[in-house]
Amino acid sequence: MPKKKIAIVGATGYTGSELVRILVNHPDVEIAMITSESRAGEKFSDVHPFFRGICEQTLHPAADIDQIDIDLAFLALPHGVSMDYVQQWANKPFKMVDLSGDFRLDSPETYEAWYPKKHVYPEGFSHAAYGLPELFADEVSNASLVANPGCFPTGAILALTPLLRENYIEPESIIVDAKTGVTGAGVKPSAVTHFSNVNDNFKAYGLKKHRHTIEIEKTIFKGVERPVTVQFTPHLLPIDRGILSTIYAKPALGFDPQSIYTVWQEAYAQKPFIRLCEKAPAVKEVRGTNYCDLFATYDERTNNIIIITAIDNLVKGAAGAAVQNMNLMLKLPEDTGLKSVPLHP
Amino acid sequence: MPKKKIAIVGATGYTGSELVRILVNHPDVEIAMITSESRAGEKFSDVHPFFRGICEQTLHPAADIDQIDIDLAFLALPHGVSMDYVQQWANKPFKMVDLSGDFRLDSPETYEAWYPKKHVYPEGFSHAAYGLPELFADEVSNASLVANPGCFPTGAILALTPLLRENYIEPESIIVDAKTGVTGAGVKPSAVTHFSNVNDNFKAYGLKKHRHTIEIEKTIFKGVERPVTVQFTPHLLPIDRGILSTIYAKPALGFDPQSIYTVWQEAYAQKPFIRLCEKAPAVKEVRGTNYCDLFATYDERTNNIIIITAIDNLVKGAAGAAVQNMNLMLKLPEDTGLKSVPLHP
Amino acid sequence: MPKKKIAIVGATGYTGSELVRILVNHPDVEIAMITSESRAGEKFSDVHPFFRGICEQTLHPAADIDQIDIDLAFLALPHGVSMDYVQQWANKPFKMVDLSGDFRLDSPETYEAWYPKKHVYPEGFSHAAYGLPELFADEVSNASLVANPGCFPTGAILALTPLLRENYIEPESIIVDAKTGVTGAGVKPSAVTHFSNVNDNFKAYGLKKHRHTIEIEKTIFKGVERPVTVQFTPHLLPIDRGILSTIYAKPALGFDPQSIYTVWQEAYAQKPFIRLCEKAPAVKEVRGTNYCDLFATYDERTNNIIIITAIDNLVKGAAGAAVQNMNLMLKLPEDTGLKSVPLHP
Amino acid sequence: MPKKKIAIVGATGYTGSELVRILVNHPDVEIAMITSESRAGEKFSDVHPFFRGICEQTLHPAADIDQIDIDLAFLALPHGVSMDYVQQWANKPFKMVDLSGDFRLDSPETYEAWYPKKHVYPEGFSHAAYGLPELFADEVSNASLVANPGCFPTGAILALTPLLRENYIEPESIIVDAKTGVTGAGVKPSAVTHFSNVNDNFKAYGLKKHRHTIEIEKTIFKGVERPVTVQFTPHLLPIDRGILSTIYAKPALGFDPQSIYTVWQEAYAQKPFIRLCEKAPAVKEVRGTNYCDLFATYDERTNNIIIITAIDNLVKGAAGAAVQNMNLMLKLPEDTGLKSVPLHP
Repeated sequence: MPKKKIAIVGATGYTGSELVRILVNHPDVEIAMITSESRAGEKFSDVHPFFRGICEQTLHPAADIDQIDIDLAFLALPHGVSMDYVQQWANKPFKMVDLSGDFRLDSPETYEAWYPKKHVYPEGFSHAAYGLPELFADEVSNASLVANPGCFPTGAILALTPLLRENYIEPESIIVDAKTGVTGAGVKPSAVTHFSNVNDNFKAYGLKKHRHTIEIEKTIFKGVERPVTVQFTPHLLPIDRGILSTIYAKPALGFDPQSIYTVWQEAYAQKPFIRLCEKAPAVKEVRGTNYCDLFATYDERTNNIIIITAIDNLVKGAAGAAVQNMNLMLKLPEDTGLKSVPLHP
Repeated sequence: MPKKKIAIVGATGYTGSELVRILVNHPDVEIAMITSESRAGEKFSDVHPFFRGICEQTLHPAADIDQIDIDLAFLALPHGVSMDYVQQWANKPFKMVDLSGDFRLDSPETYEAWYPKKHVYPEGFSHAAYGLPELFADEVSNASLVANPGCFPTGAILALTPLLRENYIEPESIIVDAKTGVTGAGVKPSAVTHFSNVNDNFKAYGLKKHRHTIEIEKTIFKGVERPVTVQFTPHLLPIDRGILSTIYAKPALGFDPQSIYTVWQEAYAQKPFIRLCEKAPAVKEVRGTNYCDLFATYDERTNNIIIITAIDNLVKGAAGAAVQNMNLMLKLPEDTGLKSVPLHP
Repeated sequence: MPKKKIAIVGATGYTGSELVRILVNHPDVEIAMITSESRAGEKFSDVHPFFRGICEQTLHPAADIDQIDIDLAFLALPHGVSMDYVQQWANKPFKMVDLSGDFRLDSPETYEAWYPKKHVYPEGFSHAAYGLPELFADEVSNASLVANPGCFPTGAILALTPLLRENYIEPESIIVDAKTGVTGAGVKPSAVTHFSNVNDNFKAYGLKKHRHTIEIEKTIFKGVERPVTVQFTPHLLPIDRGILSTIYAKPALGFDPQSIYTVWQEAYAQKPFIRLCEKAPAVKEVRGTNYCDLFATYDERTNNIIIITAIDNLVKGAAGAAVQNMNLMLKLPEDTGLKSVPLHP
Repeated sequence: MPKKKIAIVGATGYTGSELVRILVNHPDVEIAMITSESRAGEKFSDVHPFFRGICEQTLHPAADIDQIDIDLAFLALPHGVSMDYVQQWANKPFKMVDLSGDFRLDSPETYEAWYPKKHVYPEGFSHAAYGLPELFADEVSNASLVANPGCFPTGAILALTPLLRENYIEPESIIVDAKTGVTGAGVKPSAVTHFSNVNDNFKAYGLKKHRHTIEIEKTIFKGVERPVTVQFTPHLLPIDRGILSTIYAKPALGFDPQSIYTVWQEAYAQKPFIRLCEKAPAVKEVRGTNYCDLFATYDERTNNIIIITAIDNLVKGAAGAAVQNMNLMLKLPEDTGLKSVPLHP
């Protein structure tokens, strides 16, 4: 079978470099083009020196994509920029996986309530599939446009949706106390990502209004058809990669503490990247991989369900999920090119 | 005024070295003796080389305390060891600040339910004051034995007690999602504290059964006389020092979102180490100091109160609070020797 | 072609887990057995939880190796333990790659001068090949026993040997100022590897007498047949993996500053893991991979040659080199199973 | 005695905040004004939130310094900016300590050869004292302008000068392999200081041409009146603070390996911040303090002298040295306000 050809639009950020990291060893795919407006003409390894000897392709402006035949394009672009390209390429013969937040929500109205920009391509929402293959594999397989999930929502949605579908959880009682590595803030230097502001430090941010709140709520709602309210509090860890979320929820009537794992096992029976854990997982146990580790316990004393999820925000929370979506869209086995082992230590 | 003489019993751990760090520059106190059973005869700076040129006292066995006149002894010993010394020295003319957990709870029965040891000195509970001077200054000032609070309980109790006394919070709704630096696990090497198990990593531990749960519940109960239930989940941060707790609670009837800070201001008007913050505090902002930073907000959308507290676990969570207690017990101004500025960065 | 069968002797350390990390995705090799004396009967993923769902083989005592047919065994054992197994299995039909220091030096006499133990199997030295395939590929290919190089020597020897062969460097002028991540100290908790002794810290150790000094000197001597003296100073970095060595040397008569890279290019023309760098490399640029990055410059002002090398101590400095050696010994392409991309960030 | 009044010119950087950290607890000095052009009108604690409740002075433009009477001004400004103020205030009645590099070298010609700017105030060089009180206490005490040393030169000069004065070292053989924390790069966010480019990473920079090379050479020359050549290689550590330099040098004729420490003891007999160490020091052992730790050994095998020095780059390498200079200039005991204990861990 000839290799599928893909393009990566946006090379300078972390999701761009992670896509290349995964795809250079993907057996069924060839990177036909990598684009960057700001660094066009330079080599990919000039931007990311650790790729020297591995990927030294010349970067092109995105407009050059017209000159090649590709099967699929990844858009590794900032929020609010991606939608321009999706609109412009809507009738092209290639599929798209958009790693930005531009098509993740249920409508342009919701988008504009949580993102600081008018949406230029409202029509896109109607045919964008939410790219969480463990829950929406059919939609993803048949989509020409996939909205790759946000990093924080991934773990929370994967943990909660099966339990909510089973009516195990009070849908208005959910608290997601999330802790993320710094790469979630992107490659651009700022006071937030300045080494000495992060190292040996820890703090919360975005209280009450982080836009992943609505992404979690709306997506779980798609899965369970009941309104869900989530208290979402992100914190910044002095680590590069990884999100660990500690989730608290009240059991609903009929909750069976013995069967949380049974519900998860049934929901994720054939899913290669969900690992159910007997002990609370650590973020380093998924580093560099596409795994989502899940753990739960019930505290009789307090009547709380406690769930812990761990992912690598750049892989299962971004580039890995995007490749998993690509595999489905190109009719390849879901885990092709994604079987790496966590880098620990 | 002649300097007061104190002894530090237990030199090899972090609380021992922090006590010396604070007390060598305390203007009204002289370190008369430092003890260690395992390193007796060596110099303090042999055990902690960063003290070379600063504190080179010879370490003594604890029994040598009989040969000197002291005003107060700090017990910087492991849980379960401290009570032996408290019992043995109960009739000595000096006061004691015990940094272990041996006398923090309300009774030997509670102690034995949460700590894995039979209590050897049940009588001690009746005259031990819980050493949180912001709430129990009178008891501390008059006590001959002070039980220095646990590191996790300190921030949580300081944040919650005034609001519970005001009936602002449903006492069974409290969730304390706490994150601590590694020094909380002590100086002894183990897999838990092995560099490569912590660095670039993050995880929860002690779910549902950490003994600080009961310390928080029982102490707040002392303050408010209503049963309190706390879901307490500690996590291990890849940092040396600092505890940041994110606390979630449901408002009680009559809660006024505008006046959380007013309640705190009234409760802590003359307290030099409570800082009320307009923005969410970070642990590095209190590093090396005796401050407890407090922040709160109310989310109308979810009807949750969110509180964030930050302390340095080795200072306000241990040695600094112990010195603050000592100041009160020796009738010195509360903040003597404790006015350091956070080491940031 | 049927897969080759290998065994990994010693499962609890970092080299053991790295071998499994690399080999589970090796296309031509099957892990037939993993052994551990202390954890026999448990699953490999009980010891290393990040392997859950990936490698859940039961651990065997090493003696069980007699019950299977294997082509090659990796000995991932402590110094001084390995030689017992090498002796015991000397006449077995399988080859061995020994990751300890037991057969790296040129004689039992040299070994006993630098290692604190009598050598039990002096005969082993005569047929052990030094496993640096870039320099000794033929010896490795034909060996039944390969001594895998030490982590520090690897980068230094690869950088220096071609230049010394070319008579570019005064052989008595060499200074290797090396900085290593903490995993070089092994998996066993100790004060040296205690998180708070390493984090935000940096120091030298083993001055003048680190045993890798003699390994560097003796191996380069094999390459150049001239006595070489090396000042080797290791330092401990607050990172998990990676060694960066800054090497200073005086040019010999006839040195041509323009042709350092030419010499390297010729020496390493067909070597897949040597990357020559235009800019000084960083350790994170090789993390998780088998690359050795090399950089050099000459300072006219001071008449010093400055060389910088970077490797991942657990891969090119241990398990990766061992797999590379295995590939040669089993007549597989040298880079099979080793084409991973650095994990950066 | 009334307190001396000082001003701090430049509030937003690390040296500015360190000066305030040290001076708020200095018993003989009052901070009369803190200036910032970019943040004038805001509070100091708005810029550095960890100062809330400690220093909430309003920031002024530097021109407001004319409205107050001060004894001394600290210039905590970038290189190339400081000299404008020094020139402008040359005839003012207050003394100045300049923390930039503008007056550290021996002439405007040397300055312009190593710094990328024309010097606007060449006259300043003639009356600027080099502010290393351990070597130049008299000049500092009598100066109206003190050039505070660079962070890297401080440790290297303190280690080497007594030995060179004693003719123990070949002056052209010196190699300074230095490793610094990230705060040395300043408070301004950039790719160099971006968390994920530093964390778990390590690399060299500024090879052969770092401007501290000439500062070391010229200053040691002042001390020994012989030309000195230094190979200086800085590296970036994933830590906040601290510089550890490993120095290699060849012994001169007449070198006595037994007496390195004797030479140091004599040179630094009454100097409160020099600590001579029996074991190699670690950077965390001086964190937050004005100490310079020194260690040396001689390797007979290689005929190399190896010296290790450790300082906190923000204290002994900047703000602490500046306060030490101020103490001398204001005729206060040298160590006033500087007796803090290292923050370890």
